[in-house]
Amino acid sequence: MAHDEALVRDVLARARAAVRDELQRLFQDHKRTGYGPLYDQIADYPFREGKGLRPAICFAACRAMGGPDSQATYSAAALELFHNGALLHDDIEDASLFRRGIDTLFRQHGVPIAINVGDASNVFSVSLLLRNVEALGVRKALQILGEVERMSRESVEGQAIELDWIRQGRFDLDDQDYVRMAYKKTCWYTVIAPLRIGVICGSPAGIAAPRETDLLRLLELGLHAGIAFQIHDDLLNLEADETLYGKEISGDLFEGKRTVMLLHFLRTAPQRARDRALRLLRRPRHLKHAGSIEWLHKEMRNAGAFDYGRSLARAYSERALQLEPQVLGFMPEGDDRRFLREMLMYVIDRVK
Amino acid sequence: MAHDEALVRDVLARARAAVRDELQRLFQDHKRTGYGPLYDQIADYPFREGKGLRPAICFAACRAMGGPDSQATYSAAALELFHNGALLHDDIEDASLFRRGIDTLFRQHGVPIAINVGDASNVFSVSLLLRNVEALGVRKALQILGEVERMSRESVEGQAIELDWIRQGRFDLDDQDYVRMAYKKTCWYTVIAPLRIGVICGSPAGIAAPRETDLLRLLELGLHAGIAFQIHDDLLNLEADETLYGKEISGDLFEGKRTVMLLHFLRTAPQRARDRALRLLRRPRHLKHAGSIEWLHKEMRNAGAFDYGRSLARAYSERALQLEPQVLGFMPEGDDRRFLREMLMYVIDRVK
Repeated sequence: MAHDEALVRDVLARARAAVRDELQRLFQDHKRTGYGPLYDQIADYPFREGKGLRPAICFAACRAMGGPDSQATYSAAALELFHNGALLHDDIEDASLFRRGIDTLFRQHGVPIAINVGDASNVFSVSLLLRNVEALGVRKALQILGEVERMSRESVEGQAIELDWIRQGRFDLDDQDYVRMAYKKTCWYTVIAPLRIGVICGSPAGIAAPRETDLLRLLELGLHAGIAFQIHDDLLNLEADETLYGKEISGDLFEGKRTVMLLHFLRTAPQRARDRALRLLRRPRHLKHAGSIEWLHKEMRNAGAFDYGRSLARAYSERALQLEPQVLGFMPEGDDRRFLREMLMYVIDRVK
Repeated sequence: MAHDEALVRDVLARARAAVRDELQRLFQDHKRTGYGPLYDQIADYPFREGKGLRPAICFAACRAMGGPDSQATYSAAALELFHNGALLHDDIEDASLFRRGIDTLFRQHGVPIAINVGDASNVFSVSLLLRNVEALGVRKALQILGEVERMSRESVEGQAIELDWIRQGRFDLDDQDYVRMAYKKTCWYTVIAPLRIGVICGSPAGIAAPRETDLLRLLELGLHAGIAFQIHDDLLNLEADETLYGKEISGDLFEGKRTVMLLHFLRTAPQRARDRALRLLRRPRHLKHAGSIEWLHKEMRNAGAFDYGRSLARAYSERALQLEPQVLGFMPEGDDRRFLREMLMYVIDRVK
């Protein structure tokens, strides 16, 4: 199930360029009239080039509905900026060392400034969404604000679930717990909202809004694609080429992150190995020695935990592909719908 | 210039009660359908009873324009929730120990959870503002979202300015630098936005929106009242009754916060005292001994820094009172306009 790399690469690059231009304009305007140094810091993460997956999904869904890119620009840029605001806070919450190959912002400027830059990113996402009033009219602009509100609500709930697991030292979790958490934390803002917002942006001007049933179906597709994306992301953290991936390999093990792979290992490992793993995972990060993390990594691989994760990600991706003809049935065939289909495979094939 | 305590007390209490009811409903609804524990944490700060100044200003301005309280409820609750979201992040950024007499949330649950609860508070503020569409119609709802966007933008800029001063160890600042910072950080979300939003909420239904010139004048009034409020707040931090105030007395000196009083002292103190003060202020918090902070406190008092701050706060409050007849001239006389006038004195008379 290899994906059409050229198409995916092109659509992602095009989306990144459009978002980069829009954000550059936004930051330059405010840098001139407001407190300048803040805008260099807000621009930092977005201009450490990411994948651009969220804006690409939004633009493609808009085009597939017949709308020009210009109808989705503010929304796509807002989604990317929200994403970067979330990363700024996540990096502090997870004490992550690197983001896109460079020191995390809180390690460069300290936690207080990084919290504020994350808050500022969220504020400017809302600024962009308010511009939709002129670009798309009042009704669509409000509908998109509603989508973003739902997306943000799901995200903070998902984050709360995961942080409580860590705070409470909980590892007695199964795949269902993981899926519920990742549905909220990842699926909404990575796939579901970009898809739904793109459809709203691109719907013909005569039709005020896409049908509620169409939007509802996108949720199921986005759930499956998003879970596949997140499991694959966790696999990359364990196995990727560090240069491509841009984060510390096995950083998730240092952070004690509950992944499908780790949970599978803890469920299936012999008592002694499990006890040793739990003792290690519960230590604060600076007391986790690299050698012990290497041991856990090897044990997990040998126990088949990585294979288990890979097959689960594949199953979610395949289920999404099965749903596609029905769920995206209201979109005409063409490159844009094809990109959205390819994306359902890309989420488990990508190398970064 | 004593203020009418009974009126102020009543209006504040009424606003607090209305906001408490609205937030309780909001959190209970989501607690049932979402991830419950998050909602107990979001409710924590708002239910540690604050002053309720921001919602009270919003309600009073709405009533003064002839609108019932119900037209301002969502906005007032959103302002209070934004305020509490800001406090959650501020407390981490400033490493504050207490908030409203109880341990700060990050000390109870850790920094990661406190960051997320602050983010969640901001999300639910937007949720409340979106309900204005049904309560006030599309046009006013969007106008209020625009006000909140501006308010949030000013707040993160003000916060960025202050955090950069700390990060860069800067103390070569004058009153103008302070006023610019506090205008952005405090005035907008404490006075200007609550006033302007209240006026929008309460404007007669026939009139789509209040006149732009009226809103613009509120900015100048809010600037003066807000600066007076912030200087007085900084004075309370140095001199208040700890039980009433709910924060650690002299916490600002431990945090190295640039207040009008401290900057005045550093400008006017003899070389030796200034050098000693700067060495102390630049030390990390845990290396600042209580005895040294007491020394600085006494030096500042003896040098007249507190008196200087008091007279500056009074001058801003008096200027706001001078502006009032002209700025609020479009509001009919009555208890609500009288409250807004009293508030211009209350900001420098309050004990917490």
